[in-house]
Amino acid sequence: MLATFSDVEPPAVTRIVFSEQDLRARSWFKQLCAEAGLATREDAVGNTFARWEGARADLPAVATGSHVDAIPYSGKFDGVVGVLGGLESIRALQKSGFRPARSIELIQFTAEEPTRFGVGCLGSRLLSGALTDSVDITLRDDSGDTLNAVRTRAGFGGDLAAVRLAENAYSAFVELHIEQGPLLERENTPIGVVTNIAAPASFLVTIEGQGGHAGGTLMPGRRDALCAASELILEIERLARSSGSADTVATVGTCEVYPGAINSIPSRVKVGVDLRDIDGGVRNRVLDEIKRAAESISQQRQVQMQMEMLNADLPASSSPHVLQAIESACGEMKIPSRRIVSRAYHDSLFMSRVAPMAMIFIPCRDGVSHRPDEYAAIGDIASGVEVLARSLAALSIDVT
Amino acid sequence: MLATFSDVEPPAVTRIVFSEQDLRARSWFKQLCAEAGLATREDAVGNTFARWEGARADLPAVATGSHVDAIPYSGKFDGVVGVLGGLESIRALQKSGFRPARSIELIQFTAEEPTRFGVGCLGSRLLSGALTDSVDITLRDDSGDTLNAVRTRAGFGGDLAAVRLAENAYSAFVELHIEQGPLLERENTPIGVVTNIAAPASFLVTIEGQGGHAGGTLMPGRRDALCAASELILEIERLARSSGSADTVATVGTCEVYPGAINSIPSRVKVGVDLRDIDGGVRNRVLDEIKRAAESISQQRQVQMQMEMLNADLPASSSPHVLQAIESACGEMKIPSRRIVSRAYHDSLFMSRVAPMAMIFIPCRDGVSHRPDEYAAIGDIASGVEVLARSLAALSIDVT
Repeated sequence: MLATFSDVEPPAVTRIVFSEQDLRARSWFKQLCAEAGLATREDAVGNTFARWEGARADLPAVATGSHVDAIPYSGKFDGVVGVLGGLESIRALQKSGFRPARSIELIQFTAEEPTRFGVGCLGSRLLSGALTDSVDITLRDDSGDTLNAVRTRAGFGGDLAAVRLAENAYSAFVELHIEQGPLLERENTPIGVVTNIAAPASFLVTIEGQGGHAGGTLMPGRRDALCAASELILEIERLARSSGSADTVATVGTCEVYPGAINSIPSRVKVGVDLRDIDGGVRNRVLDEIKRAAESISQQRQVQMQMEMLNADLPASSSPHVLQAIESACGEMKIPSRRIVSRAYHDSLFMSRVAPMAMIFIPCRDGVSHRPDEYAAIGDIASGVEVLARSLAALSIDVT
Repeated sequence: MLATFSDVEPPAVTRIVFSEQDLRARSWFKQLCAEAGLATREDAVGNTFARWEGARADLPAVATGSHVDAIPYSGKFDGVVGVLGGLESIRALQKSGFRPARSIELIQFTAEEPTRFGVGCLGSRLLSGALTDSVDITLRDDSGDTLNAVRTRAGFGGDLAAVRLAENAYSAFVELHIEQGPLLERENTPIGVVTNIAAPASFLVTIEGQGGHAGGTLMPGRRDALCAASELILEIERLARSSGSADTVATVGTCEVYPGAINSIPSRVKVGVDLRDIDGGVRNRVLDEIKRAAESISQQRQVQMQMEMLNADLPASSSPHVLQAIESACGEMKIPSRRIVSRAYHDSLFMSRVAPMAMIFIPCRDGVSHRPDEYAAIGDIASGVEVLARSLAALSIDVT
């Protein structure tokens, strides 16, 4: 159902934060929460909190959640499994007659995807204090609108400084998510227990060369920005492959060409780069190598390259306490699990800064994600939801 | 003045065919023609003909002209010098008391630039029969509108088949244009007499790889369409440089990436390539080498590449008769000229199929064109206009 709130034909999904379809998805989600008897509130950036009040509402709550925004032409499961699966786990606990001690909160985070504002995990970054309210003016979308203008138009007009969570707001945070990698499927293991989340760095490189008429300018005198960009793209690929760590991944996902006419030499090219590793040290070393490669290409081709860091976050480790709750749940259910690392980043990366965190992964077909053919089997989703429900229950009644 | 009809801030000019600014420029031009006492007519694709009736209106007319459309972020002189300079040469002849024998026609050609419909010289191709009226439905702009829909909206609703010129419509065609190369300026020669126009070939290459999450997909299994495109772009550059002909130029001017998100592996990339040489044989050999390079990259990277030819025209040679008229004009004026080849293509390339043709080049600063800093000195423009006026006069009274 949630996949029908999309700007493209199924099975592809496009749901950009604060688009009409995103707002429709949010409103449908809040209605489901209300039907489950959960009180919802929204903060100034549109993070949505649905609360199941516990007997010990005075204590920090246990939280779960994920996101519903989706990059262009992606699939139905990324993020959504954690939001609707979180709601399903609460409903299952309600049906079972369970009474929470600590309250249980389900969070739908705003703009986990960087599509619109260029920064991933916007909602959880603000919640954890990793970003300050200055982004309200500094962040702009492609049409030049500030975050402030966009969120206000979407109905979220409050003070962005108030988004940051109070200390000890949560005693634990657990996120259910598809693996977005092939390991669980390959090993036929229904549950992955995430011990670490990789450190993503993302940056833009703007290459300034010299334009001109494609017919009139001979080859020797050219300073073609797209040829320089192509060398850089291949160097980035090579450096990630030869980093010495099998976990290093680097991707150039965007490439804008100016003036962008078939008979005009590109004068300016802007590429967007995403670089990750479990090990922040390896990642920073590869980042330095990319910078050196950019300098060397600039010199050889007589172009200028400017690098603009969008973010370079630290990796996160899971809390042993929360890991144990998840593994105990698997034990009760007598289903196999394995410890695993996440190369993709998640709102959990930032929630780990304000609460003990761990994640639950379920298999996805062929390990693919961010594509229309992204798929998770209903049986695997059900197992994940049950593991989440049991973990939340255990963490809720742990009032020591 | 014409440069003020633009979608961008000066000195840059963007004037896409049938945009509001293009229509304003056309209307201003027609008014100037009317003020000069010229009768104007427009055909179904918007080519504009301003006619100075001669005493021998029964004979094929002499024609000159160029275009006013401009690619994104280009300059004020490309095309415009030939249109306004053509008008100026007619006005100068009028003032001098000259009376034409053959009529003299000034043509403003539609869509010399391929920006909107992907095909250059749309107007002159149709005039010369190099394209048939089927393009009315097959050509579409980026928003998916057919040529038919766009031209009808712009007020040009007639039958496209009627655009093709009758046989012997013109006894000669002369086009005044900036060189778009550095030769005349370097040699301090005010006039270039164009003997040949290079053979342009343009084509799109669509590369289909495999998308996926930038974090979740390890490097070894990737089939990144942008990395494959980058290899192709560098190969195209290398093959043009090593063709053995100094005149070979190849340019990748456009690069579209899908899905185009910074955290998503590119699944599909489409690049636009422009390849030229004075020698059609050399050009076709390099084209074959590019095809082989594309096949080899496809195989190595396990991606699919599809090539779609947009056009692959034959080179054109100037008419000795028209060349002589131009060189005689230079002789009368006692200014130096040199013979030169055009690597850029022009409406003259197609007009040469229906009339004896030659071109007059004037120097442009640093040889640059298709850029905001494109510039031709007023003195050089005045010389070019006078050479054009004298050539048109001589060709007009030649009724043998």
